Amino acid sequence: MSVYTTVSRDSLQQWLQGYALGQLIDFQGIAAGITNTNYFVTTTHGRYVLTLFETLRLDELPYYLSLMSHLARHGVACPAPIADHSDRFASLLAGKPACLVSCLTGTDVSHPTAAQCRAVGEMLAQMHKAGATFPRKMHNPRGPHWWSLTAQQLYPQLPTDIAETLAEEIHFQDGHRFDHLPSGVIHADLFRDNVLLDGDSISGFIDFYYACNDILLYDIAIAVNDWARRDDGELDDELARAFLAGYQSERPLSQAERDCWPVMLRAAALRFWVSRLQDLYQPISGELTYTKDPAAFRQLLLAHRCRSEFWLG
Amino acid sequence: MSVYTTVSRDSLQQWLQGYALGQLIDFQGIAAGITNTNYFVTTTHGRYVLTLFETLRLDELPYYLSLMSHLARHGVACPAPIADHSDRFASLLAGKPACLVSCLTGTDVSHPTAAQCRAVGEMLAQMHKAGATFPRKMHNPRGPHWWSLTAQQLYPQLPTDIAETLAEEIHFQDGHRFDHLPSGVIHADLFRDNVLLDGDSISGFIDFYYACNDILLYDIAIAVNDWARRDDGELDDELARAFLAGYQSERPLSQAERDCWPVMLRAAALRFWVSRLQDLYQPISGELTYTKDPAAFRQLLLAHRCRSEFWLG
Repeated sequence: MSVYTTVSRDSLQQWLQGYALGQLIDFQGIAAGITNTNYFVTTTHGRYVLTLFETLRLDELPYYLSLMSHLARHGVACPAPIADHSDRFASLLAGKPACLVSCLTGTDVSHPTAAQCRAVGEMLAQMHKAGATFPRKMHNPRGPHWWSLTAQQLYPQLPTDIAETLAEEIHFQDGHRFDHLPSGVIHADLFRDNVLLDGDSISGFIDFYYACNDILLYDIAIAVNDWARRDDGELDDELARAFLAGYQSERPLSQAERDCWPVMLRAAALRFWVSRLQDLYQPISGELTYTKDPAAFRQLLLAHRCRSEFWLG
Repeated sequence: MSVYTTVSRDSLQQWLQGYALGQLIDFQGIAAGITNTNYFVTTTHGRYVLTLFETLRLDELPYYLSLMSHLARHGVACPAPIADHSDRFASLLAGKPACLVSCLTGTDVSHPTAAQCRAVGEMLAQMHKAGATFPRKMHNPRGPHWWSLTAQQLYPQLPTDIAETLAEEIHFQDGHRFDHLPSGVIHADLFRDNVLLDGDSISGFIDFYYACNDILLYDIAIAVNDWARRDDGELDDELARAFLAGYQSERPLSQAERDCWPVMLRAAALRFWVSRLQDLYQPISGELTYTKDPAAFRQLLLAHRCRSEFWLG
């Protein structure tokens, strides 16, 4: 289902000659993944994940793949890209930019426990610390400028109450700046489906293709908005507290970050609300996306507005 | 027994704060290893091997650790060094240069099968190919200049027949040059105890602290001299053939290499014969070495002289 590009055994075998990974034994498409094509590839040396990028260009990949390599080298749980004999992490296969990464164990969880939230929070802090020595930079393309512009394009199509809330939230965020907060490499999409867990242990963060340089607190807010969200759309105090306690066990938040936290939770919800509204009201024809319901993020925003407990301990 | 430097729980815990590896759970000394102190270290994130270097200085480590990192990044089976928050692979612990590497599964084998020899040969070829893009250089300190000099110092102490054979072999090697053969990064010590195996699969090459830039064929000869050697000291044709077939499945030898192979087997035996003679007759007081019997390498040299089968297929 998410094998958009079919790879033949012959072409894969040929391509693998460029790597130090031995001979191809077997390969099979992976059903998960929305944007890219993924295969499990088994060689005489081990098991790897092959990704064929359906939208990213070859020259856009070095930031993401070098970042994953940097983080893996620092012991942060994530797939390690494999370099080929020309010392490249990616090259063309079946006409698409393609890479191989180490294969992690574990599965994603839809209903995390407090212990799992704590472990994810702690690993996110480790990721933020390890990212400090990563030399490349990537601007966040989905910041305030993007959401303001996108909202302008959406207003004519939106129901009045939706448009009103959206305008209010954007106006609210316009009144706040975060430039004084610690910044660095952020994952920017650390939802539950982007973390593989082995029980309470993090097997790996995956899907780094929204990673960029931005405010660290923003990354935490994106993650808490998802990891602590119950099926009824409300945030669970115990899960949110566990996530933040895990994070702060490795990187305690500064007073400036604590002060901005309530506003940042709304900024993180706004970003995903806007992109989901865009997917729903302005779908790009031919683009491979699942359209997810934007309403969950509006509900989250409204709840954040009147929240009194912010779990910072 | 090979824990020469004792590390306290407090100092290890403190030192681990410089890494993204979570909290210390447990650590224990490893009995194997001759030169350095090794510990298994278990943290909330996983299991690692800690090495405290007893003879190498901190400024000598970057070549070896960057090489292991480079090879691991290319999918060559070996421990991957973990970088700390300052992006260093090594720093001082308990007064010694120390590093953490990923913990491999598998064990070394004293009596390898042909399939295992084949797998080691193939991985060695992969290592040689992956080493081609490694940018650092290290001169081999134990080349012809070293063995000639060392032999000069040893002659007065050696029994006549030993001294005679040694002089003959050094004279023989003086008449041959290998500068025209392919060179690159070599392990230079790929004996059976430096490879961890999981059945017939290579879990990892270890102990890269003799690695350097030299003739690739020399590395193969060092390995075949050990991997194919039976308990009676003779080389086993089937094991040697399997090793070379595995190697050549990934990097077929050139005609120039095939021509030099019989001489190279003697060069590789000579190098270890000389260092074992040195360990025996000129032990460095206080240095931590097992003295191994030099006689095996003399026997090997004499056998190589009259060998007719060289397993190149």
